[in-house]
Amino acid sequence: MMEHRTQIRVRYAETDAQGIVHHAVYPVWFEEGRSDFLRKVDVAYSQWEQQGYFVVVVDLASRFAKPAYYENNLTVVTCLKRFRKRLMEFSYRVVDDTDTLIAHGSTRHLIMDSEGNPSALSDSFYQLVQQKMSASAEQ
Amino acid sequence: MMEHRTQIRVRYAETDAQGIVHHAVYPVWFEEGRSDFLRKVDVAYSQWEQQGYFVVVVDLASRFAKPAYYENNLTVVTCLKRFRKRLMEFSYRVVDDTDTLIAHGSTRHLIMDSEGNPSALSDSFYQLVQQKMSASAEQ
Amino acid sequence: MMEHRTQIRVRYAETDAQGIVHHAVYPVWFEEGRSDFLRKVDVAYSQWEQQGYFVVVVDLASRFAKPAYYENNLTVVTCLKRFRKRLMEFSYRVVDDTDTLIAHGSTRHLIMDSEGNPSALSDSFYQLVQQKMSASAEQ
Amino acid sequence: MMEHRTQIRVRYAETDAQGIVHHAVYPVWFEEGRSDFLRKVDVAYSQWEQQGYFVVVVDLASRFAKPAYYENNLTVVTCLKRFRKRLMEFSYRVVDDTDTLIAHGSTRHLIMDSEGNPSALSDSFYQLVQQKMSASAEQ
Repeated sequence: MMEHRTQIRVRYAETDAQGIVHHAVYPVWFEEGRSDFLRKVDVAYSQWEQQGYFVVVVDLASRFAKPAYYENNLTVVTCLKRFRKRLMEFSYRVVDDTDTLIAHGSTRHLIMDSEGNPSALSDSFYQLVQQKMSASAEQ
Repeated sequence: MMEHRTQIRVRYAETDAQGIVHHAVYPVWFEEGRSDFLRKVDVAYSQWEQQGYFVVVVDLASRFAKPAYYENNLTVVTCLKRFRKRLMEFSYRVVDDTDTLIAHGSTRHLIMDSEGNPSALSDSFYQLVQQKMSASAEQ
Repeated sequence: MMEHRTQIRVRYAETDAQGIVHHAVYPVWFEEGRSDFLRKVDVAYSQWEQQGYFVVVVDLASRFAKPAYYENNLTVVTCLKRFRKRLMEFSYRVVDDTDTLIAHGSTRHLIMDSEGNPSALSDSFYQLVQQKMSASAEQ
Repeated sequence: MMEHRTQIRVRYAETDAQGIVHHAVYPVWFEEGRSDFLRKVDVAYSQWEQQGYFVVVVDLASRFAKPAYYENNLTVVTCLKRFRKRLMEFSYRVVDDTDTLIAHGSTRHLIMDSEGNPSALSDSFYQLVQQKMSASAEQ
């Protein structure tokens, strides 16, 4: 299963009055990991939207193991768990620079058309993404 | 099981380029539901912190049933599922003004001291909160 | 000059590690004040977008007089300073429940079409908004 | 006058229903530019807080020249305009990868102690920062 690593440095605005990163920031980092995964595979999400495919989050789960702090250098490790024409599933681990687990989570996504109705990737786009993923995994 | 209802109106800043509320906003609304629950029970979370108790989110799950849009009037229905000296668990439903389900979710929380170590509510504070909850439920 | 008052209660997610509301939250509250102003005048901003008018922020200024804290009950006082077919200007004051000034600011906005090009309100829409404002001011 | 450049890639969560970056995101990027400036000068802001100095934003101005979009690669160019024991002033330009101006702005900051009262940097800390800035500028 392919994994991609994305560097994140904690912004001051991402902390809260407990002095730690607010938990609602993690879904944003997961999304950035996912976006970065797709960019590295060379099928950037902006291309999906240009093709009329909107990938909508239907499910999110997250566990917070240790707090993160302002200026921490973190890595989001993103893994594509399932890739179907109608559905995608990603998992994530956020680790610090000693590889200690900060948080982990998963998201599930449905493919929608521009009207917000459930849709499916065309054969050709689905195969294009699969080929790019295989090529990326072999590097 | 006690429930509290909190009104939310969708802010423009909470939408994203899909034209809908970004999914990372829901944990913020859940937290607002939780804060409002505690205020209505008359044990506002700011009091907990003044007593040296920090309630830290360790677990978050959410399902997104339907998109929400700018200016929608929504209700967060917050329910306290478990209340222990070391642990709290809440569930949430976000519904629109026709009571249609937009999203639901749950969070689990541990009590920490001001140093960020796991802690427990004192007997007296725990009983105070329970009494206030009973009083609130009877109203 | 018409003024409208919008209630805001500080969310935990809006605080930062200094224990106060992060300054990037104020533009969001100003926007909420502006949205609320237009709703009260009965020309909700979602109607503008449905008519193909996008109101884009071109200028923002803000001064922060005193910090705000979690659970503070604040009021955003919004005032429309200029209303032209191509341009709007608003000013804002954020005050606490003793009417102490927390922050003040202003924004300028241009009317754009759906392609993001500078545009102007039609005579009829411009007059509709002006009439609604006069009616609202007289109440 | 020293300048530092910070790379930013637009996150999906930073867009709004107009399809562009929401204007309240720019103060967050300015802050990230400022944080990065201080890290490069080797006086990271987390050190300031450890010394008991809290740098509080008192003033923010911003102009938005062109919209930014999801996945845009932007640069925040941060410049320290004034550095006094009680006051700091920064200016910022956000440019895209063709050096086109997206936004510019400025912030003013006061030094506060941990109680939130106006304070001043000690002679030794002030001189340390100045020496590090000179060393950084010469590189």
